Amino acid sequence: MRNIIQGDLAYNWHPCSQMKDFESFPPLVIKSAKGAYIALEDGRTLLDAISSWWCKSLGHGHPLLKRAIVDQLDAFEHVFFGHTTHEKIVQLSQKLAGLTAHLNRVFYACDGSSAVEIALKMSLHAHQIEGKTKRTQLMGLENAYHGETALTMSVSDLGVYRKPYEAILQGYPVLKGIPYVANQQDSLWSDCSAIWPAIEAQLAVHQETLSAIIVEPIVQGAAGMRIYAQDFLKRLRVWTQQNGVHLIADEIMTGCYRTGPALASEHAKIEADFVCLGKGLTGGFLPLSAVLTSSAIYALFYDDYEAGKSFLHSHTHSGNALSVSVALAAMEVMEHLSKAGQFKALEKNLSQSFQDLAAEVQCLVQVRNIGGIAAATLVNPNQISRLGRRVAMAGVEVGVLLRPIGNELYWLPPLNLLPDEVIDLQNKTRQALQRASYI
Amino acid sequence: MRNIIQGDLAYNWHPCSQMKDFESFPPLVIKSAKGAYIALEDGRTLLDAISSWWCKSLGHGHPLLKRAIVDQLDAFEHVFFGHTTHEKIVQLSQKLAGLTAHLNRVFYACDGSSAVEIALKMSLHAHQIEGKTKRTQLMGLENAYHGETALTMSVSDLGVYRKPYEAILQGYPVLKGIPYVANQQDSLWSDCSAIWPAIEAQLAVHQETLSAIIVEPIVQGAAGMRIYAQDFLKRLRVWTQQNGVHLIADEIMTGCYRTGPALASEHAKIEADFVCLGKGLTGGFLPLSAVLTSSAIYALFYDDYEAGKSFLHSHTHSGNALSVSVALAAMEVMEHLSKAGQFKALEKNLSQSFQDLAAEVQCLVQVRNIGGIAAATLVNPNQISRLGRRVAMAGVEVGVLLRPIGNELYWLPPLNLLPDEVIDLQNKTRQALQRASYI
Repeated sequence: MRNIIQGDLAYNWHPCSQMKDFESFPPLVIKSAKGAYIALEDGRTLLDAISSWWCKSLGHGHPLLKRAIVDQLDAFEHVFFGHTTHEKIVQLSQKLAGLTAHLNRVFYACDGSSAVEIALKMSLHAHQIEGKTKRTQLMGLENAYHGETALTMSVSDLGVYRKPYEAILQGYPVLKGIPYVANQQDSLWSDCSAIWPAIEAQLAVHQETLSAIIVEPIVQGAAGMRIYAQDFLKRLRVWTQQNGVHLIADEIMTGCYRTGPALASEHAKIEADFVCLGKGLTGGFLPLSAVLTSSAIYALFYDDYEAGKSFLHSHTHSGNALSVSVALAAMEVMEHLSKAGQFKALEKNLSQSFQDLAAEVQCLVQVRNIGGIAAATLVNPNQISRLGRRVAMAGVEVGVLLRPIGNELYWLPPLNLLPDEVIDLQNKTRQALQRASYI
Repeated sequence: MRNIIQGDLAYNWHPCSQMKDFESFPPLVIKSAKGAYIALEDGRTLLDAISSWWCKSLGHGHPLLKRAIVDQLDAFEHVFFGHTTHEKIVQLSQKLAGLTAHLNRVFYACDGSSAVEIALKMSLHAHQIEGKTKRTQLMGLENAYHGETALTMSVSDLGVYRKPYEAILQGYPVLKGIPYVANQQDSLWSDCSAIWPAIEAQLAVHQETLSAIIVEPIVQGAAGMRIYAQDFLKRLRVWTQQNGVHLIADEIMTGCYRTGPALASEHAKIEADFVCLGKGLTGGFLPLSAVLTSSAIYALFYDDYEAGKSFLHSHTHSGNALSVSVALAAMEVMEHLSKAGQFKALEKNLSQSFQDLAAEVQCLVQVRNIGGIAAATLVNPNQISRLGRRVAMAGVEVGVLLRPIGNELYWLPPLNLLPDEVIDLQNKTRQALQRASYI
């Protein structure tokens, strides 16, 4: 095991990390994983409270998902999708098309950033084809995160990710004054009339030049699980429709039942022009992302080749049969769990457990929740440096994988978490906070 | 089967395609695939002459690669890589570090575009950390292709992919006058002294502002398999080193033994500052890409968190254990085949077979080859519209999956292709050319 750690530190550069931090907190060596639990080589077990960066929506090693991969391996793993098709991808696309009334066309990629880039490119290209050549601007929300390629960072608003790369970023406008809420009982949730004029005034400036506005519907994940009012999203959708601007719903984290319904957009009863899916789409087993759009937008690109309207975006593993097969199985399992009431039950249980914990420990404020997400801000009266990291390290010691974003502590566990596992999550989080000498 | 085609046309938007083209050339329905051959639901078999967009370097269904996935599934499929590690990824990273003398640090992503964006970001960030704040420019070669996200398109030079997206592209300089060659016997291959002054004059203009120059070493794939002189690459490397500019080797297509050696950079006996791998890395089974760089560059980012030098790029499936395990198996198999002389034998066989075919059919000019690649330009005296597509359609009728790029016909088959399969490839390509009423 020591060899694995030494080898890791000698060769690997981990994502989203300062590697010097590994000196005081060496990498955890994974042995196996099952359900919500990860087994380390040193014998310890960790409850995966963050679904391995928000993707393992059905936990680890789900037998039906494993079976889907093994079965597909018997036939073929990947054949280029430029001019071929197969049964599973048609079934998956049909299922994804069924998530909304109008978005029945699916384009596949591997990661979230690529999906967002594809949606942005489709929006810009569609406006070019329509002769709306002035529509070349893009807009995101304050605190937004849409990925880490140059263009997705350009529509994001988290300075820590952007700062070293200003030279490659576009200077797009940012929509400010988002009406954040604690939960669906917040009065703002259903009525944003008071703040709307200030929003509309910002939008008006860019009315004629915007190609698209991109949002993480309802929950901004990387911003620290900030939840905003569904009425804001509803009004934004009306505005975009009235002004000929596309709305892109980046549902990479929020989609696939993470906030309750299949898509977080459903909270506002809206449909965007483009929906991006990823993470939970394969239950986090394999990389796969998808962009859904409407027949109307698809039709703009459909013409004789010579007309020069083709969307020529290539992607080697678009339609990878292993990824697609496990995604189909994952969506079927999630659909079943949704119908069986699991996600509603989990929301209630997680929310209650998190609130109870917050009331008990007195160090969690601004408690908020929706669907399979609960979060709060760690109060930090003594200005402890990197408090979130300290809690994460304490969490590993007591058996839970937490990863606060700055001082925002959150739960985003597998959606099939059982009631006794929620109790375990609560207990271990309490112990982590205690161990961090924090309560 | 008809249902699958109808479903595909109803829901799927294929990559790099004008969907109206599917009216006259419906999608091929895959049933299974084994070795170099793809079986369709209608009973036909196709020889995969393009390794499914240049990734299936060991063909389809390779038993050792399948086994690697199944074995890894027994333990775990994916755990977030932000602060964990595992045996297979250490083994893979060690193997990748062994490909060069100095590039011993590995960062993982899923697709080629993301890998290129990561390398470009690392270069820019490294120069920022070093206080070289003027170094914010990037440069690519004429006819280059590095991906389809906005930044990777910005360093690419293929207008057909770029044109609709000018609003999101950066205007970087393009290095022109690249010394293209037919093969390694071309006199230019080893001596570019005659053209070098013209190259150097272009470079001099950007000497103080360039952060990095990015190249596809030796072969520009999407440009239609254009091969250029190793001496040009060697000289370019010397210039970048002398002028404090990073060299990024985009080996996504050329790496993993596609041009003979493990990396195409080896033809010029150079090491870049960054190497991007993808496609063949997993034998095309699963999405995985990697960026290799040096200890020296890694060390620039290594500091106390508070110093603000962290490379915070996130990637959900970075280090996915299924992708990593199949990549390790693929690299082991390829290493073995390399040592056994398979790639040298294939190069000789492919090259001879392609040249013989060209001599026979008289419609293939500018024949060129290197490693597991052979290509030529289809002569088109009668200006047949979309001649390449016509040959591709004829290919399917006679049992070979070809996909000319414009009028550039190429072979880029699995690297473990057997001698009798090369004969089959030659025969079917001849038949395709005949069937296209072309010879």
